[in-house]
Amino acid sequence: MEKVEGNLLIIGGAEDKEGECSILKEFVKLAGGKDGKIVIMPTATEEPEKVGEQYDNIFKKIGVAEVEILKIDSRKDAFCMKAQKIIEEATGIFFTGGDQLRITSILGGTPVNHSLQKAYKNGIVIAGTSAGAAAMSATMIIGGNGEATPQMGILNMAPGMALVNQVVIDQHFAQRGRLGRLLAAVAQNPYILGIGIDEDTAVLIDSSAKLRVIGSQTITIVDAQGSTFTNVSELKPHQPLAITDILVHILPQGYGFDLKKRKPLIN
Amino acid sequence: MEKVEGNLLIIGGAEDKEGECSILKEFVKLAGGKDGKIVIMPTATEEPEKVGEQYDNIFKKIGVAEVEILKIDSRKDAFCMKAQKIIEEATGIFFTGGDQLRITSILGGTPVNHSLQKAYKNGIVIAGTSAGAAAMSATMIIGGNGEATPQMGILNMAPGMALVNQVVIDQHFAQRGRLGRLLAAVAQNPYILGIGIDEDTAVLIDSSAKLRVIGSQTITIVDAQGSTFTNVSELKPHQPLAITDILVHILPQGYGFDLKKRKPLIN
Repeated sequence: MEKVEGNLLIIGGAEDKEGECSILKEFVKLAGGKDGKIVIMPTATEEPEKVGEQYDNIFKKIGVAEVEILKIDSRKDAFCMKAQKIIEEATGIFFTGGDQLRITSILGGTPVNHSLQKAYKNGIVIAGTSAGAAAMSATMIIGGNGEATPQMGILNMAPGMALVNQVVIDQHFAQRGRLGRLLAAVAQNPYILGIGIDEDTAVLIDSSAKLRVIGSQTITIVDAQGSTFTNVSELKPHQPLAITDILVHILPQGYGFDLKKRKPLIN
Repeated sequence: MEKVEGNLLIIGGAEDKEGECSILKEFVKLAGGKDGKIVIMPTATEEPEKVGEQYDNIFKKIGVAEVEILKIDSRKDAFCMKAQKIIEEATGIFFTGGDQLRITSILGGTPVNHSLQKAYKNGIVIAGTSAGAAAMSATMIIGGNGEATPQMGILNMAPGMALVNQVVIDQHFAQRGRLGRLLAAVAQNPYILGIGIDEDTAVLIDSSAKLRVIGSQTITIVDAQGSTFTNVSELKPHQPLAITDILVHILPQGYGFDLKKRKPLIN
């Protein structure tokens, strides 16, 4: 069972863009360094020029010569042959933040999405921050209050890009108090592993389905597979959740996690 | 080993005061109902009159005839014979919110505190909300940012009232995104069980050291005893924490937890 086919860099949002830029530099490295061809996908945002240019400037500052902002704002754009070619020639693809539902509703099922999947299977690194991170799993969180108790109806989910399976990703995790909604997500199907990624923190997942943490904060892995009890199927909207025996791991930079074995990787 | 000697009602703050008042009604019931003698302890707050009167009104509205606001604002007050007598004659004692360090720094080691301990050992219910909840454990959290990744130096702890041992309590838990600081607390000594209590939610602990959840939200039990790895002792201030294999239980009203066996109690 393949959980992951290529290389993913999933960023919890608000990555450092002015200091060391360690996460964005890691992306550049994975995308072939200065000789790479980086494609910025600002589909998630309604300000594609502004956001696209911001990343364009950073990647150029890091030293990448070829950076392209691929503005795809409608499904019609996503049928464009030129766009497909740009993606197929990329050595790294970067999804900005915004609204994850824009990514999937605009790209889902289009030739551009097909090109993305092809690039991914060929080993091209695909990065996403914030909304671009959330969109990577097969089922994604599209909304739900933070700073709330785990409860029924607290979150909305939708089909994601499915670049990584059997996980659900939440971002801005500690900063927006999102434990409740991530627990509500995994309680619905404890086979799904919850990955909460803090701001300025990322996970790099390779084709062996091992992830490595980079950045300044931590990730929170929520594994409810061993849970012996939950009331989730009996609840009405906004009723609080019961769920027992959830295994949680807190991992900062330098640590990893084996998604297949569901085990932390300590140096 | 005694973890708990009497009856405690530990409230996560912001309990309903205008609607059903189910938590405050439970306190009244435990304190002997309408014939009880309730003592309100507003020591934690710098507005003892205002906060004291608010609870006085509620308890009277619920039907309690004898309610006394025991204003102890200094250590000198806490040596007063009359105050000791009031506590010793109470059938229920209620600590308001405010600053938990006021409770312990004003009452710690005084005759009033001695009377409190005596009342508690005699089975009188002691309730506390927010700061009054935090102060109940042997070591209490006195500060630390919410909505932050688990990290070194994120929280400050101090000796608490020690009405319940081997636990650390955090309040306004989901609402203020406090998982990080509770994890940072228990990582320092995984024998200590973390109990995060949401707003308008409470745990009732009896002398058998079993707790029962009441209220509208949930509690989060954080049990790091089985943790197989942590880097906490190696960290410098603000470095992010690594800790693996923490067991978490989410429990709403109707569920319980056995503090001795460290096991959820499902109806």
